[in-house]
Amino acid sequence: MNNPTINQTRLWNSLMEMAKIGATEKGGCCRLALTDIDKQGRDLFIEWCIEAGCSIHIDKMGNIFARREGTNPSAAAIGTGSHLDTQPTGGKFDGIYGCLAGLEVIRSLNDQKIKTTRPIEVSVWTNEEGSRFAPAMVSSGVYSGKFDLEYAHQQVDSEGISIAEALRTIGYMGDDEVGQRDLHKFFELHIEQGPVLEQQHKQVGIVTGVLGMRWYDVILTGTSAHAGPTPMSYRKDALYAATQVFNELYQIAERGEAEGARCTVGELAIIKGSRNVIPGDVTFTLDLRHAELAGLSDLEAQAKQVIKNVAESTGVEIQLDNIWDSPPLAFNADCVAAVSYAAENSGLTYQRLVSGAGHDAVNIASVVPTSMIFIPSIGGISHNEVEYSSPDQVGDGCQILFDVLLNEANK
Amino acid sequence: MNNPTINQTRLWNSLMEMAKIGATEKGGCCRLALTDIDKQGRDLFIEWCIEAGCSIHIDKMGNIFARREGTNPSAAAIGTGSHLDTQPTGGKFDGIYGCLAGLEVIRSLNDQKIKTTRPIEVSVWTNEEGSRFAPAMVSSGVYSGKFDLEYAHQQVDSEGISIAEALRTIGYMGDDEVGQRDLHKFFELHIEQGPVLEQQHKQVGIVTGVLGMRWYDVILTGTSAHAGPTPMSYRKDALYAATQVFNELYQIAERGEAEGARCTVGELAIIKGSRNVIPGDVTFTLDLRHAELAGLSDLEAQAKQVIKNVAESTGVEIQLDNIWDSPPLAFNADCVAAVSYAAENSGLTYQRLVSGAGHDAVNIASVVPTSMIFIPSIGGISHNEVEYSSPDQVGDGCQILFDVLLNEANK
Repeated sequence: MNNPTINQTRLWNSLMEMAKIGATEKGGCCRLALTDIDKQGRDLFIEWCIEAGCSIHIDKMGNIFARREGTNPSAAAIGTGSHLDTQPTGGKFDGIYGCLAGLEVIRSLNDQKIKTTRPIEVSVWTNEEGSRFAPAMVSSGVYSGKFDLEYAHQQVDSEGISIAEALRTIGYMGDDEVGQRDLHKFFELHIEQGPVLEQQHKQVGIVTGVLGMRWYDVILTGTSAHAGPTPMSYRKDALYAATQVFNELYQIAERGEAEGARCTVGELAIIKGSRNVIPGDVTFTLDLRHAELAGLSDLEAQAKQVIKNVAESTGVEIQLDNIWDSPPLAFNADCVAAVSYAAENSGLTYQRLVSGAGHDAVNIASVVPTSMIFIPSIGGISHNEVEYSSPDQVGDGCQILFDVLLNEANK
Repeated sequence: MNNPTINQTRLWNSLMEMAKIGATEKGGCCRLALTDIDKQGRDLFIEWCIEAGCSIHIDKMGNIFARREGTNPSAAAIGTGSHLDTQPTGGKFDGIYGCLAGLEVIRSLNDQKIKTTRPIEVSVWTNEEGSRFAPAMVSSGVYSGKFDLEYAHQQVDSEGISIAEALRTIGYMGDDEVGQRDLHKFFELHIEQGPVLEQQHKQVGIVTGVLGMRWYDVILTGTSAHAGPTPMSYRKDALYAATQVFNELYQIAERGEAEGARCTVGELAIIKGSRNVIPGDVTFTLDLRHAELAGLSDLEAQAKQVIKNVAESTGVEIQLDNIWDSPPLAFNADCVAAVSYAAENSGLTYQRLVSGAGHDAVNIASVVPTSMIFIPSIGGISHNEVEYSSPDQVGDGCQILFDVLLNEANK
């Protein structure tokens, strides 16, 4: 007997059908959380799940759980899912792929009349992107106890509408308490949002964890002066000091790349900059990431040393303010092994990697054994209307999810 | 017999008296070119010059020449002078010091009943700063044939008022053709506007020339991507490439400092910069200067090589656009020697240096043998209300000017 498989065409068609809801002119999607467009997407998802025989459960954060019963209904379920909301100019795959792939797993189990011991639950987590309401991943955050329900309900969008109000408006303020699903394990399938799988020609990413991240504001105070009359050795050029710091840190991160080290300066401003004036005041943002807590702390220590050295050699004062800290996460070893096992037996190419971006799975991992599966994103592009993965690529990832859920639901 | 000297107290008092015209709350001056305030300053200057026995000559750019006759009236005059206009928040010394020091030389010659063979002419050049009308140094530019009179007359301020109109409004559209004074040599005394004399503890700067300058716009095109999911070796970070270019060029300029090499990046922008996004598009300005034309061309060649190397190693496209070019100037050797001789015999400390900033003397140098004398500016600060040189410093510079003019007017 052949191994049971998912229906790639049906999955693709569902993705394309869902993409019509909030479709943008340039081929992307705009389904901001808890808008009327989001409601249309939710309604369609639920309609499809009910057609697939699922029961629907909605909690007080509007999180949706579509449950396919197991032969042992009292056994904890195997969970999967992701999010339905997008960035304002988002794509057709980020988030929704994980939800519709979960549905496709259920549809395929139904087609092939496969029963599982444990129930399977496909979830849609509210407001993952954080585009309409801050913070991002707020509902998986409430689920995992990271945020209070009350706090989350009070968060408002740019027009002052709260999450609670928006949930009621679109009819998705459920009755269930948040965090009460009985989940045995949780697997989130997602596009990579980075270039690694594509460039390494791998079809599946076995995600072992998520990079830790520390954000800093760096403020440099040198001396502004006229470019012409001020010889190099008399200068306290804040931009020159800033670039020395950045170049050193970038190279440190390059050397630590294999361990997940990353360094990004995404914003830099010269205060009152002028073409023929030596910059006196410069600010920049610093984003340091690492797969290991010790590695992240080491990166920070090296940053402080570099800053000390550059400040001494240039005479520019440099202040480093840590404004946010998110520790690295290692996914549950059994869950990672389950994905590994499926990948190894799939005939697909694969590799282990860490996620550089945050996902609902990061929150869920703190209360349920969890890991993730990635598929390639063309050009590593996401949060963009041109975001794309091919029908084969989305099918391959869904097949891995199918194998993992089937195996785990029968354990 | 003692050497004749200038009257430092009178010079200082004249500077402070003139500083009341356009005085700002923070102790600076705002005397924008050809305003009513500028007219008041011009009127006072002319009043003082007439009291000192000078004849007054005004040309069609409003340039003022106050002439003290020589014993040989047909001999070409020795010229000195600077400008009366200031930046919007300028100081009490930039420009006006050179004019009032010239007047003080004449007053002191009168006091001590010294006659000179050649006439001495103290000039005020209209609109040196370029704050109200572009370009800067426009009237010395017309004097030297760099600009047409017609072109200069048509330049307008931000309200559409032309230089010609402004000259007529304040009554300073003279009858003399521009560029017709019979000058044998010209010396401009000015504050340094840089830190060198102060930091080297020197009282007098013998200015041997003016740095050449080339301005560029640099445009870098890499690939914007999410900071988290994109490992270092997959990046085309336009900011990282920009900082590598800047750091290399800065160090090249440091090594060439003794020859007058300078490198400044005064403006830098990350297009659509965001804290957790790798910069894809970056622009910066580049200001390269050098005392020698060959050195300036060599700096540019090195910049092109650095850009080529960085573009190759980072995969970021880098475009270098030369937008302005001002060649280096070596002042007349006899004039530099005249200032050197006076400095060596003054008992003051001195050093040779090049000017990093432009001055009217740069234009005059193309038609009359010319050089400059600098005095220290506290903190190297100018174009600022806190600009300052002490009574002793302004007196020392004026004494050098006196000695130079007296020597040269009797040659």
